[in-house]
Amino acid sequence: MAIITLTSDMGTSDHYVAAVKGAILSQLKEAVIVDISHQIAPFNNRHAAFVLRNAWPHFPEGTVHIIGVNPEADGQTPHVAAGFKGHFFVGADSGIFHLLFDGQPDTVVELTLKPDDGRLTFPTKHVFVKAACHLARGGTIDLLGRKLAAVREQINVRPVVNNDTIRGEVIHVDHYGNVITNITKEAFTSVVKHHAFKIAFGASRHDITAIHKTYSDVPVGERVAFFGDSGLLEMAVNKGAVGNGGGAAQLLGLRVTDPVLLELAAVPAKTVAHA
Amino acid sequence: MAIITLTSDMGTSDHYVAAVKGAILSQLKEAVIVDISHQIAPFNNRHAAFVLRNAWPHFPEGTVHIIGVNPEADGQTPHVAAGFKGHFFVGADSGIFHLLFDGQPDTVVELTLKPDDGRLTFPTKHVFVKAACHLARGGTIDLLGRKLAAVREQINVRPVVNNDTIRGEVIHVDHYGNVITNITKEAFTSVVKHHAFKIAFGASRHDITAIHKTYSDVPVGERVAFFGDSGLLEMAVNKGAVGNGGGAAQLLGLRVTDPVLLELAAVPAKTVAHA
Amino acid sequence: MAIITLTSDMGTSDHYVAAVKGAILSQLKEAVIVDISHQIAPFNNRHAAFVLRNAWPHFPEGTVHIIGVNPEADGQTPHVAAGFKGHFFVGADSGIFHLLFDGQPDTVVELTLKPDDGRLTFPTKHVFVKAACHLARGGTIDLLGRKLAAVREQINVRPVVNNDTIRGEVIHVDHYGNVITNITKEAFTSVVKHHAFKIAFGASRHDITAIHKTYSDVPVGERVAFFGDSGLLEMAVNKGAVGNGGGAAQLLGLRVTDPVLLELAAVPAKTVAHA
Repeated sequence: MAIITLTSDMGTSDHYVAAVKGAILSQLKEAVIVDISHQIAPFNNRHAAFVLRNAWPHFPEGTVHIIGVNPEADGQTPHVAAGFKGHFFVGADSGIFHLLFDGQPDTVVELTLKPDDGRLTFPTKHVFVKAACHLARGGTIDLLGRKLAAVREQINVRPVVNNDTIRGEVIHVDHYGNVITNITKEAFTSVVKHHAFKIAFGASRHDITAIHKTYSDVPVGERVAFFGDSGLLEMAVNKGAVGNGGGAAQLLGLRVTDPVLLELAAVPAKTVAHA
Repeated sequence: MAIITLTSDMGTSDHYVAAVKGAILSQLKEAVIVDISHQIAPFNNRHAAFVLRNAWPHFPEGTVHIIGVNPEADGQTPHVAAGFKGHFFVGADSGIFHLLFDGQPDTVVELTLKPDDGRLTFPTKHVFVKAACHLARGGTIDLLGRKLAAVREQINVRPVVNNDTIRGEVIHVDHYGNVITNITKEAFTSVVKHHAFKIAFGASRHDITAIHKTYSDVPVGERVAFFGDSGLLEMAVNKGAVGNGGGAAQLLGLRVTDPVLLELAAVPAKTVAHA
Repeated sequence: MAIITLTSDMGTSDHYVAAVKGAILSQLKEAVIVDISHQIAPFNNRHAAFVLRNAWPHFPEGTVHIIGVNPEADGQTPHVAAGFKGHFFVGADSGIFHLLFDGQPDTVVELTLKPDDGRLTFPTKHVFVKAACHLARGGTIDLLGRKLAAVREQINVRPVVNNDTIRGEVIHVDHYGNVITNITKEAFTSVVKHHAFKIAFGASRHDITAIHKTYSDVPVGERVAFFGDSGLLEMAVNKGAVGNGGGAAQLLGLRVTDPVLLELAAVPAKTVAHA
């Protein structure tokens, strides 16, 4: 059995996703196709990388992941297949692979496959499906093309960590309006240790001063911060979401790239001096 | 073969649903995963129960249904697995099981599974998947935990049935804007018999005075009432929907919990006396 | 293995699609179910036909395609199964089959299946699933009912092709806002040959004067026209989409049925004479 996953910005109101699935099943009858998401914000590598980065590790080794976001090749952007920790990834090297692995993959080849009839507008179907089916059948990645030294660098924004502050940012707002930052538990622990702290999100004056374990550690409708399933600092409203009182992002007016500032509580005296 | 269905409010723009699917396939390669819906209104047990109640009976016996709505456990809310009419259901006992079965399941156990690493924010993935895969493999429900006497009661609103009236309410508005009530065919028949009647929806003055068999029993654009696939009284506009002239809910300004009043046609005289 | 695809306007927030899938799996355990789309505009045969027409040829022969758009039968609209190029299609003969095949299928039968219990409101589940499972099991189409001479005609709007003009129209706006017309490459070539030309979309004054191969043949944010995967003339904005600067349809205010006029560049002199 071979699992092929699909991540794209194609939506589900057109024929595009279904055409890709039909093409896969025509080439590999027994393929198990799993949608990661087709609701990636159009042409948004960071959104695509965030979603796929948090999904692929849960699949069995050998799974092939097709990336149908910014799939076009050009002189600077080859079509590639990459191997990483026993998984395979197929797409255009627009920078998304580097975002996805937070660095370089274990191996990467430039696809030498060309679409059958020179069709260039839909490489996800005409190029990536063939490569993915080859890999899903157990074919080697080397057969797909010419080995490359590296994928193009596109850097995930990392928080700036000092002795008594972390300057991070919002990197994702989910379906509930939960706000996910780029602050890892490791960075948090290295700064906070046993000190008191406060975390400010965007222009909000409602600082967070405690980290909980999960949503329900606070009453319904209150804000709560914790390290979520992605290992990143996240702020939510317990049982809050669009259509249910508003999620954290809506209530505090937060968007992706908004700043998140953690300061040790010893700092306020200094801050007061500024006033 | 083992079917596992998923019902959630997670939407499809994040990695959550895909992470759950990956976890299932990692534990049970041959699982057939079917989405019931991921568009449940956030944290809405009634919406989730309505959708799953009308979907699960169509699946083969032995199917395992994961409920990823309000999945958190707390002191009053255990994680449970329930058996009902040959199907299995896994979720948090927030009241949704009682809504779903309109009473008690055949059997229910409190899950003793704990997430591997104390992760509490995503029990659908960390707890329910394991229980579901155990059941899908043919494992017994008893092995999953401690037997409970009952699930928590959460009551579906029932219509008030008198000699010559039924006071019900709108319990669902579907994708087309069709309005589904909690009035069953049995209740209707017991009151109406062979009498003339009228049914008022919300504040609308446009009474329904006939029950048809299906949408097309009336001209396009006209209102029609019938007992739908769920066995409940439903009002629709033939070929009406958002984007196509408006569905019944939009045209009549109806929402979930709006009252629906059936009166026998003999009653109007009395009503006039009140005026 | 048997593939059954689903095309509908049922959306994904109700139980309808899941009930259909459950019914299929109850009748044919090993069915592989693929969603074409459930986001068809309600009751819109043209949208459904466009999406399915561009999806089904990518599936393996023997695939069965259920059409859950306008599924009701009436005196003029039988439920039918049609065979075309080794694929099967099941639905109500509302005109959608003729749109789909741009003519007549290879074979068509009127289904003699009746829903088990006289339920008329959900034929996709109660009628089409049975017919589809019969076909997916390898059963013959003839066994499903009475042979019909033809399906009902509903004509795709074709462009008017003259010596030096093509008058077409917008037939689809996709998820990105790309504008797809009914002008084929053949029609285009037969008129344009090696002449210069200009193409006007709707009321836009920004004529297109070149055909490219794909999106990235123009800078990001610029308009580009090419013959897309469907073989039809398409206009897009490179990397443009709702939420990413706007797609072509949004930027130029274009909608389905808007006119698209191609004129040879020799023509302008004449046009001026009219002024």
